[in-house]
Amino acid sequence: MVEEMTNQKITVALIGAGFIGELHAKNLARHADVALKYVVEPSEALGRKVADATGARWLSDAAEAYEDSSVEAVWIASPANTHTDFIRRAAKAGKAIFCEKPVGMNMEDVDVLVSELREYKQPILIGFNRRFDASHARLKEIVESGAIGEVEMVSITSRDPNPPPPAYMKATPGGIFYDTMIHDFDIARWVLGVEATEVYATASSHINGELNPDREYDAATATLKTTSGAVCQVSASRRAVYGYDQRIEVFGSKGMVQSQNHGKTNVKVYGADAIRTDPLKNFFIDRYADAYVREIDQFVGAVRGETTNFPNVWDGRQALHISMEALKSARSGSPVSLK
Amino acid sequence: MVEEMTNQKITVALIGAGFIGELHAKNLARHADVALKYVVEPSEALGRKVADATGARWLSDAAEAYEDSSVEAVWIASPANTHTDFIRRAAKAGKAIFCEKPVGMNMEDVDVLVSELREYKQPILIGFNRRFDASHARLKEIVESGAIGEVEMVSITSRDPNPPPPAYMKATPGGIFYDTMIHDFDIARWVLGVEATEVYATASSHINGELNPDREYDAATATLKTTSGAVCQVSASRRAVYGYDQRIEVFGSKGMVQSQNHGKTNVKVYGADAIRTDPLKNFFIDRYADAYVREIDQFVGAVRGETTNFPNVWDGRQALHISMEALKSARSGSPVSLK
Amino acid sequence: MVEEMTNQKITVALIGAGFIGELHAKNLARHADVALKYVVEPSEALGRKVADATGARWLSDAAEAYEDSSVEAVWIASPANTHTDFIRRAAKAGKAIFCEKPVGMNMEDVDVLVSELREYKQPILIGFNRRFDASHARLKEIVESGAIGEVEMVSITSRDPNPPPPAYMKATPGGIFYDTMIHDFDIARWVLGVEATEVYATASSHINGELNPDREYDAATATLKTTSGAVCQVSASRRAVYGYDQRIEVFGSKGMVQSQNHGKTNVKVYGADAIRTDPLKNFFIDRYADAYVREIDQFVGAVRGETTNFPNVWDGRQALHISMEALKSARSGSPVSLK
Amino acid sequence: MVEEMTNQKITVALIGAGFIGELHAKNLARHADVALKYVVEPSEALGRKVADATGARWLSDAAEAYEDSSVEAVWIASPANTHTDFIRRAAKAGKAIFCEKPVGMNMEDVDVLVSELREYKQPILIGFNRRFDASHARLKEIVESGAIGEVEMVSITSRDPNPPPPAYMKATPGGIFYDTMIHDFDIARWVLGVEATEVYATASSHINGELNPDREYDAATATLKTTSGAVCQVSASRRAVYGYDQRIEVFGSKGMVQSQNHGKTNVKVYGADAIRTDPLKNFFIDRYADAYVREIDQFVGAVRGETTNFPNVWDGRQALHISMEALKSARSGSPVSLK
Repeated sequence: MVEEMTNQKITVALIGAGFIGELHAKNLARHADVALKYVVEPSEALGRKVADATGARWLSDAAEAYEDSSVEAVWIASPANTHTDFIRRAAKAGKAIFCEKPVGMNMEDVDVLVSELREYKQPILIGFNRRFDASHARLKEIVESGAIGEVEMVSITSRDPNPPPPAYMKATPGGIFYDTMIHDFDIARWVLGVEATEVYATASSHINGELNPDREYDAATATLKTTSGAVCQVSASRRAVYGYDQRIEVFGSKGMVQSQNHGKTNVKVYGADAIRTDPLKNFFIDRYADAYVREIDQFVGAVRGETTNFPNVWDGRQALHISMEALKSARSGSPVSLK
Repeated sequence: MVEEMTNQKITVALIGAGFIGELHAKNLARHADVALKYVVEPSEALGRKVADATGARWLSDAAEAYEDSSVEAVWIASPANTHTDFIRRAAKAGKAIFCEKPVGMNMEDVDVLVSELREYKQPILIGFNRRFDASHARLKEIVESGAIGEVEMVSITSRDPNPPPPAYMKATPGGIFYDTMIHDFDIARWVLGVEATEVYATASSHINGELNPDREYDAATATLKTTSGAVCQVSASRRAVYGYDQRIEVFGSKGMVQSQNHGKTNVKVYGADAIRTDPLKNFFIDRYADAYVREIDQFVGAVRGETTNFPNVWDGRQALHISMEALKSARSGSPVSLK
Repeated sequence: MVEEMTNQKITVALIGAGFIGELHAKNLARHADVALKYVVEPSEALGRKVADATGARWLSDAAEAYEDSSVEAVWIASPANTHTDFIRRAAKAGKAIFCEKPVGMNMEDVDVLVSELREYKQPILIGFNRRFDASHARLKEIVESGAIGEVEMVSITSRDPNPPPPAYMKATPGGIFYDTMIHDFDIARWVLGVEATEVYATASSHINGELNPDREYDAATATLKTTSGAVCQVSASRRAVYGYDQRIEVFGSKGMVQSQNHGKTNVKVYGADAIRTDPLKNFFIDRYADAYVREIDQFVGAVRGETTNFPNVWDGRQALHISMEALKSARSGSPVSLK
Repeated sequence: MVEEMTNQKITVALIGAGFIGELHAKNLARHADVALKYVVEPSEALGRKVADATGARWLSDAAEAYEDSSVEAVWIASPANTHTDFIRRAAKAGKAIFCEKPVGMNMEDVDVLVSELREYKQPILIGFNRRFDASHARLKEIVESGAIGEVEMVSITSRDPNPPPPAYMKATPGGIFYDTMIHDFDIARWVLGVEATEVYATASSHINGELNPDREYDAATATLKTTSGAVCQVSASRRAVYGYDQRIEVFGSKGMVQSQNHGKTNVKVYGADAIRTDPLKNFFIDRYADAYVREIDQFVGAVRGETTNFPNVWDGRQALHISMEALKSARSGSPVSLK
């Protein structure tokens, strides 16, 4: 009987059919434990395309999905500034919730949300995709096993192959912090298992011309102090010609563990001038392809009440908070206390 | 119009719902360009299980599928000794054909098949899965580009993590040659683009006790001479405790290219006594997971008349032939000419 | 004629026969272009031991060596607090000078020395050993070639296997900055070819008990801003159980270059649980063994008037200055301007 | 007393001042436990040059050195066809002997020598330099520790960067076997600790034009069967554009161990098209520089009566024997029994 129940599919409504929404839609539709019922998307073109490809029904508005009692879970992949509200409504509707990072774009509103959500018992989870990467998860497991002793230093390198479009960068000044490094701050908290107490950051603009006409920040570093005494250094850039550079290194009293980069292939070519391998996987779609699938696995586990390590709204709030304060530090040139 | 046509799904009947058949069934069902209509399998339990999981219809016999004119392609994943006959019947029925290696188990019958098939124009392709691995395919591309000059030597290492069950080994004496090394011989022909003229092989039994009570061959080497003068060395074993060891190395007048092993993760742990990484991916299911999907992509391309490098029945015949002669060489201790 | 002159050996007096002095003595004695005439060392036991082993004459005091006109060069490897004075006297005596880092321990005195030395023309060089490492030098060459474009970020990791004796640590509070990270600051300036404008540092004490009873700083990080806009992050520790961790990474607009760690051997062991390699070379004696020999090569070149990239007294002063200010930053918690 | 004696230097006469003789001369002269007294060399120019550079005395003939009772050891680095005779005379003179491989060029004469030498007790050692490489020695240690279980397969790759001069190649037909692969056969015996029973070899000529006008063999493979049942594959070439390719791989019932290649530097460059490292060390002078020093260390140990694993005349005889029979196999196309 129990077995039968766990085999029952979870009915899901997806909100958002943009680039990342489409990616989730395909993975959800393919997942053995998920029935994707609705694709909610204001743009009919986008919405119908994704709904048709996945056998779901397109809705222009979330209301019908939220009211449909057969919908157990809502999967939010809409624009960042709509997250807080969609979470709030889905929580009230009693749905289990997955929401892409960030949990919101307005710190005060996010804090209100966090306190409102205290009364809800269903899983309300934030999609920090990197936590679901097999190599990063193995690193975390090794740190927790004690194999490297007490953690003393963490180094995170995080470089995108190309900057987002200039219009997007202009619309989100300092976005490198709350768009990109927010992942790194989440990884730091996740790996260390403690809170950051202070952040010092630098930000630079190296890219010229068409790719960054407004000279927005395109590179940044951050140094986090934490409650355990461990220090974390982050290095981020919006442009790395050799591919998507994603590394975590944790140094402890008994050793070190690294989650290293992933090449496009495992081929090595030996020539007279050099030994060559292919560059890194190009971007998160390739690098974290498996992570997006594991994310659904873990979400299903959470909905079914099995133990899970899924990041929750508090994790989303903390990573956003550090990002915002890091941006302030970069602008002022001084470290900022995180209380 | 053309675009619309290429987007039409290809209707497929799968033959065989054992371990490898089930793997193909899932990939076929998921593939955007394939409609899996039938699962043909004598065992009702196996057949229904796979058919239900993929939305296909179970048939106990292939006849109905072969007669159904909506079925464009047959995907053969049944036991090795049924391959020749299923190919023959599917060819007569005008179906495009994918067949798992080997093309058969009886050399004479395979030769008859090869000559019979000369009159058919549809794609009749053999599933040497390794050719579809992204790293191996990249190695082939590099060799063809001339980057390493004229090929002089090829080294192939091919070690399974564990031997098959003793009953299976006993039923297929010398199976390490036509079961396992057949892949290596295919790779050698594929990479070199020439035929082998002579094979010298050794075979050993190293595994004792329950795993190999009949002392069947569990390790073997082969040396191939070829029409181009290049020499190929193969090293194979049915047991490698560190995982599935799959390497190709091609040495030429201007350099060398290697397709290297794939670890389970990209994590590296630095301790006082050693620096550790995780062992290799365990077996072909993990190592060649993507290759099985690419195999379908390429098959779809072949059915649609696009250029393809898919191995054909002649390739299947040649790899089988070398395997059989290698076994003779190992037994006699002398090199065997391949005519 | 010229050729003959360049083949003439350079007569050298070594000052200091402690651990590092003995190392230099052996390398000097072995060098084809050097005649080691004197070993100056107050301790008769140490001095005689090193002099005997190298065929040199022991002197308890430098005066005789400084007055001997056949001595062309002085090689200073005495305790750090004696460096400034030995350099001053050797410069007055007209000798070419090699001096181990740091150039001194007192910032004001070092600044006086720097201005005094302006009138001397002979080579007065500081032994930042890492600049002579073949891999680090190759990294520098690649950066200068423009292969990675404009430098945007530098990451330096620098971890010793074990802390120095507690007595030494107690006598040099904050020594991790001017003892160890001074090398990293020199590397940053050398690789970037620009000056640092600001430093932000953190310092921690992680080691307990007998190894660090006084809880001196044993781990530190630093972030340097520079005149070019490039930012440099340094991560240093006095204890790494897996060996001497020495890495430089330079990230630019067109790529990245890394000088990676050196293992004890190139052996790889594949087991059922892990793939293992040997830990890193244990310490600077092993890791920089070749660098110490190249240091002499380059010094000989400098004495002979050939072009050289040898660090000079100004380099020594700048690295010391950044170290001292980094220590202040770590203590105050705020970034410090480097003027 | 004992300590004093072990600290006494061993007086050595070097025979041969060609390329490899000069290399040994410098290492011997530098070695703390060796006094190089004579350099024996028929060519006055070569002999004086090496003698002068090392503080030794030049002799045109070995007789004086053999008669000088202060000479404890003879270090033979003369042309290969003089080895057997120099060993014979030195043995009679009671000297400890180091002789470069091969032990001779005439199999019958070598066999006579082997039986003559049975009555001598002093160390008579053959210089297979690879045994003294730290990585290869570590591999051997790991195999002996049982960490990889029973050895089942050995793979040795051995490729020189460039062929020797055409005149040399013409004068030594089949030289790739007794010149180059002789090292690999020695390594196989050393690692396995058993004798080879049969050899099958192939040989090819790939290099054209000026580098190999006589189309001598420039590439070869060999397969050795052994008394333990382990099989060894060797792949050798006289031309590898990417440097000196030197690898050993040992596969056993409990794992695998590899001694991998050595790059020129540890630098890695990440570009848009590829990730590059420097090619391999160019040749034996670089790759085995440390091995040549360790060779002297071990020889000194042998002369002092300490336990040693130095290859002896029997090892030299066996490696030569396999080489000669491998050449016969390559010529005939059939495996050859090694009795």
